Amino acid sequence: MLPAVTFQPIGIVRTPWETPEGMPIQPVGAGQAWGRAEILDSLAPGLRDLEGFERVILVYELHDPQGRGEPRLEVVPFLDQVPRGIFATRAPCRPNPIGISIVELCKVEGNVLHLRGVDLLDGTPLLDVKPYVPRFDSFPNSRAGWFEKRQDRATTMRADGRFRSPE
Amino acid sequence: MLPAVTFQPIGIVRTPWETPEGMPIQPVGAGQAWGRAEILDSLAPGLRDLEGFERVILVYELHDPQGRGEPRLEVVPFLDQVPRGIFATRAPCRPNPIGISIVELCKVEGNVLHLRGVDLLDGTPLLDVKPYVPRFDSFPNSRAGWFEKRQDRATTMRADGRFRSPE
Repeated sequence: MLPAVTFQPIGIVRTPWETPEGMPIQPVGAGQAWGRAEILDSLAPGLRDLEGFERVILVYELHDPQGRGEPRLEVVPFLDQVPRGIFATRAPCRPNPIGISIVELCKVEGNVLHLRGVDLLDGTPLLDVKPYVPRFDSFPNSRAGWFEKRQDRATTMRADGRFRSPE
Repeated sequence: MLPAVTFQPIGIVRTPWETPEGMPIQPVGAGQAWGRAEILDSLAPGLRDLEGFERVILVYELHDPQGRGEPRLEVVPFLDQVPRGIFATRAPCRPNPIGISIVELCKVEGNVLHLRGVDLLDGTPLLDVKPYVPRFDSFPNSRAGWFEKRQDRATTMRADGRFRSPE
């Protein structure tokens, strides 16, 4: 048994999405959806130099236990009709509920990042922000397994309650 | 104060890098460096369907407190000579020591992922594995702030002890 790992959120993300139903399933489908990452005042000096980046990588906790559902190892993802191994999907009901989103950074104002294209629930605890660097992060032709013929549908697909736990 | 978030590692990553000195600073500089993610047996069914993906996103704890150094808000990164806000860098001495690496997936064998291009220390606790999906993750022309003219140097740059805490 490996020791547990504990993190202290660096802030909170505000978005228009109060429940998973109707939320875009990926930033590419979130269009102009605004959002705002409010970083703790004490950490604001760490945001210096971020404004030159067009996109940032948000690392966060998928914090709503009802919305993300119980962890499972196989799941029927939004873009498919058959069960897939959870680590071959981006579904939220993962063993560790960690989310990653690459979103557009519009402006930095004090301790607040103004974001566009957010696919996060309102109130999401933010764990880290990293600059998106194409040379490290962009692999346009990377083979995408079962997603291959389905990834474009993510631009219009909206979440539903499929991962939701029974109340 | 936001509540702390706790995760249980899903496995461990084995690599040739026992200390940060000499380690590639990004997967793009790691070339053929092999690695292996050993997932807990109980979670192995979650790896189904992963083999069709050329790359995976590893989410992990930067676990070596000496190697990553004390958290700080400004840092002189490997690719620059002036201090930058920590959230505008990929340096390990972050408020939350969470790392993300996009690595090549060569083969899945039972509970083991065989990887190429690893820039992780041996023994790194793995928190999540996600499939790399170009439509979600690839933005080849995204503006990269201070990295803009420096990102190519990451292919040859090696880490040194600069973030190391005094023993």
